[in-house]
Amino acid sequence: MLFVELIRKKRDGKELSREEIEFIVSGYTRSEIPDYQVSAFLMAALLRGLNHAETAALTNAMLRSGKVLDFSEIAGSKVDKHSTGGVGDKTSLILAPIMAAGGVNVPMVSGRGLGHTGGTLDKLEAIPGFNVNLELAEFRRVLVQVGCSMIGQTQDLAPADKKLYALRDVTATVESPSLICASIMSKKLAEGIDGLVLDVKTGSGAFMKELKDSEFLAELMVETGERMGKKMVALITDMDQPLGRYIGNALEVAECVEVLRGRFAGSEDLVELTLELCGWMFFLGGRTLTKDAGRTLAQEIILNGKALDKFRDLVREQGGDVRTIDDLALLPHAAHHDDVLASTDGFVSTIECERMGIASVMLGGGRFTKEDAVDPAVGIVLHKKAGDVVSAGEALCTVHYNSAERFAQAKPVIANCYSISAQNPQPRALIHRVIQGKSN
Amino acid sequence: MLFVELIRKKRDGKELSREEIEFIVSGYTRSEIPDYQVSAFLMAALLRGLNHAETAALTNAMLRSGKVLDFSEIAGSKVDKHSTGGVGDKTSLILAPIMAAGGVNVPMVSGRGLGHTGGTLDKLEAIPGFNVNLELAEFRRVLVQVGCSMIGQTQDLAPADKKLYALRDVTATVESPSLICASIMSKKLAEGIDGLVLDVKTGSGAFMKELKDSEFLAELMVETGERMGKKMVALITDMDQPLGRYIGNALEVAECVEVLRGRFAGSEDLVELTLELCGWMFFLGGRTLTKDAGRTLAQEIILNGKALDKFRDLVREQGGDVRTIDDLALLPHAAHHDDVLASTDGFVSTIECERMGIASVMLGGGRFTKEDAVDPAVGIVLHKKAGDVVSAGEALCTVHYNSAERFAQAKPVIANCYSISAQNPQPRALIHRVIQGKSN
Repeated sequence: MLFVELIRKKRDGKELSREEIEFIVSGYTRSEIPDYQVSAFLMAALLRGLNHAETAALTNAMLRSGKVLDFSEIAGSKVDKHSTGGVGDKTSLILAPIMAAGGVNVPMVSGRGLGHTGGTLDKLEAIPGFNVNLELAEFRRVLVQVGCSMIGQTQDLAPADKKLYALRDVTATVESPSLICASIMSKKLAEGIDGLVLDVKTGSGAFMKELKDSEFLAELMVETGERMGKKMVALITDMDQPLGRYIGNALEVAECVEVLRGRFAGSEDLVELTLELCGWMFFLGGRTLTKDAGRTLAQEIILNGKALDKFRDLVREQGGDVRTIDDLALLPHAAHHDDVLASTDGFVSTIECERMGIASVMLGGGRFTKEDAVDPAVGIVLHKKAGDVVSAGEALCTVHYNSAERFAQAKPVIANCYSISAQNPQPRALIHRVIQGKSN
Repeated sequence: MLFVELIRKKRDGKELSREEIEFIVSGYTRSEIPDYQVSAFLMAALLRGLNHAETAALTNAMLRSGKVLDFSEIAGSKVDKHSTGGVGDKTSLILAPIMAAGGVNVPMVSGRGLGHTGGTLDKLEAIPGFNVNLELAEFRRVLVQVGCSMIGQTQDLAPADKKLYALRDVTATVESPSLICASIMSKKLAEGIDGLVLDVKTGSGAFMKELKDSEFLAELMVETGERMGKKMVALITDMDQPLGRYIGNALEVAECVEVLRGRFAGSEDLVELTLELCGWMFFLGGRTLTKDAGRTLAQEIILNGKALDKFRDLVREQGGDVRTIDDLALLPHAAHHDDVLASTDGFVSTIECERMGIASVMLGGGRFTKEDAVDPAVGIVLHKKAGDVVSAGEALCTVHYNSAERFAQAKPVIANCYSISAQNPQPRALIHRVIQGKSN
């Protein structure tokens, strides 16, 4: 097979066979095909598109490029959740212990924050001592013992994705639904799960700002997962304002612990989305007969304290300081905080979500480039969200910072994220659509 | 400027500025931008297209990447011709001495054959001793002394094209009108010419098989040349069957010498096209007031023997054995020849031109890859062309070969190129269209 002919075929909009796609992925993983040919192929794939069969073949080839975990000897089903990323999106830290307490295993491999979006690994690392870099044997041990474990990507799982992603990142070939789908699904399916709930974000803080783009990606991922024998559901959820009340790694851990303590006030959207995701996860895992029954179960598990117990177990087993969970004052705290005030009376109409995420990165809470260090303590606490009434001079949010210089840069950005109008805005739905796999 | 942002811009179909295109070309020529980013850019440019301004900027940047010859101190105008390539296309060897004899200089930098198409350099090298690898100073000396000189691409002229073409060749990014235009025009404009006649082929033996594609490329090249202050004309000419009677390097030299001797029989299409090209070259060079006057002048120059004299001068000054011109038996000859016979009575309806070129390469007369050696002696002499009457058992063509094995492979291919029908086919025009620059 001449690789240049495969580039030409995709360039001309023709369909590649399963064998041809496997040839590309295995050849590139083994460095037998040079970067400069693969990048031309990726651009052709982005602009011409890959159909569902090609996307599934690509996902499968990337999955098979490394180790595929097998947890079949562990009792109970294994279900994971994946979010396409947003601002204040911290549901994983709440839902994993709920699932574990309810008897569904969650072997979760997560990512770090980049650009305006946060990352689960960064949040977990705000807990002193928490180790996300477990060997696979240790990942399995924690999973068996606790019922959930949360680690970062390893060299063993889907190495083709690591190599392809690095190339896509520098060749403007990230933004292809098929390539995004294959990247996400190859890593998630390597986890050895039975089912997967996708949280595909839409709105000003999402990678896909338009509902139709989010839907297209969600449908593609659901179909790809089903082709590979997994139970699938995708929720298209709102990321037009930050989720929950807190943005910033330690602040978000604190918010999760508060929710796990049953204190939902101020975090209603976060709680609502988490319960829905849990409902679907219990349903896909066969633990309940319906999503609604799963949701009710999840709420019970929070309110009876078992989810918080599981979270303590998880933190302990991954080396974290459990005392921080019961005394949130022991989590990293920023040296300073200051309020951003409303300049006028009215209703909060929008909170520009991507810019709010960028403001958090400006404070040091995230990364503009992969090499940036992250300050776990800084962040933003939102007192007002879309639809809330404000008076001039009232605090919209409180900024937690360690560097006065960074604060000075971020403050006007944060203030500008808020729009205040005379009319009460039309509320946006939190869950826009649910796309279920046919086998559910 | 971040290169990845320029890839993204073109990927999204936006227009690049002149400065951005110069950044790409100069960065790549200096190896500051890696192959894998440039190949992604090239694929985006191929699929999204470059507009006329972008194409001109790309051509200019590639031209400026190396030396631009300046022949302004040489008396008389300088005009060149470029063909997009075909089978049996040997007009350069005839028209360059005609122009020189008529007082218009032709500083011609040509290419080699690849795939089904022949190359001027390979044809010239069929003349024992002919040196196409002249230094630029020697190129200038021959040009001054003879009025024409014919050499191969040097390292000094448009080095960006050499590097970009090598990358395009292995990344399926050759077939873009804008990239083809920039590649051709950057090299041609580096020759220090005042005007350029383009011979853009269309039909089964051309790179662009469809008339509309050939027209698009021709219009783009004419506009690009005009933007750079050159007098331009493009002829869309037929390459649906081989041009002239002979295919193969030494055989084609012999056909050219016969035409220069005024023996036009059997080569009517070659003579007609050459005279038209000469007419336009004399007109663009300001030597005649009309194309038709230029055409008449060209015919006179052949018939009075001055063109053949100039061809002898050219051969001598570039180190070739002039005796071969006056005694064609001294040119390389193949050891064997054999006829391909008509299987039925009728009219030759088509001669599948690309496959006929490939058959010639199979005999050893051309290259499948750049590294292949070329046998100057082998080739095909066509006795019948489209529209000719044939009887079963009559010779359609004679194959000249050195290897019986190669002949055995090529013969059925050649036989299959001919289609014979009961009806006389509708004749195709030799010149489909003329596209003139506005400044002419």
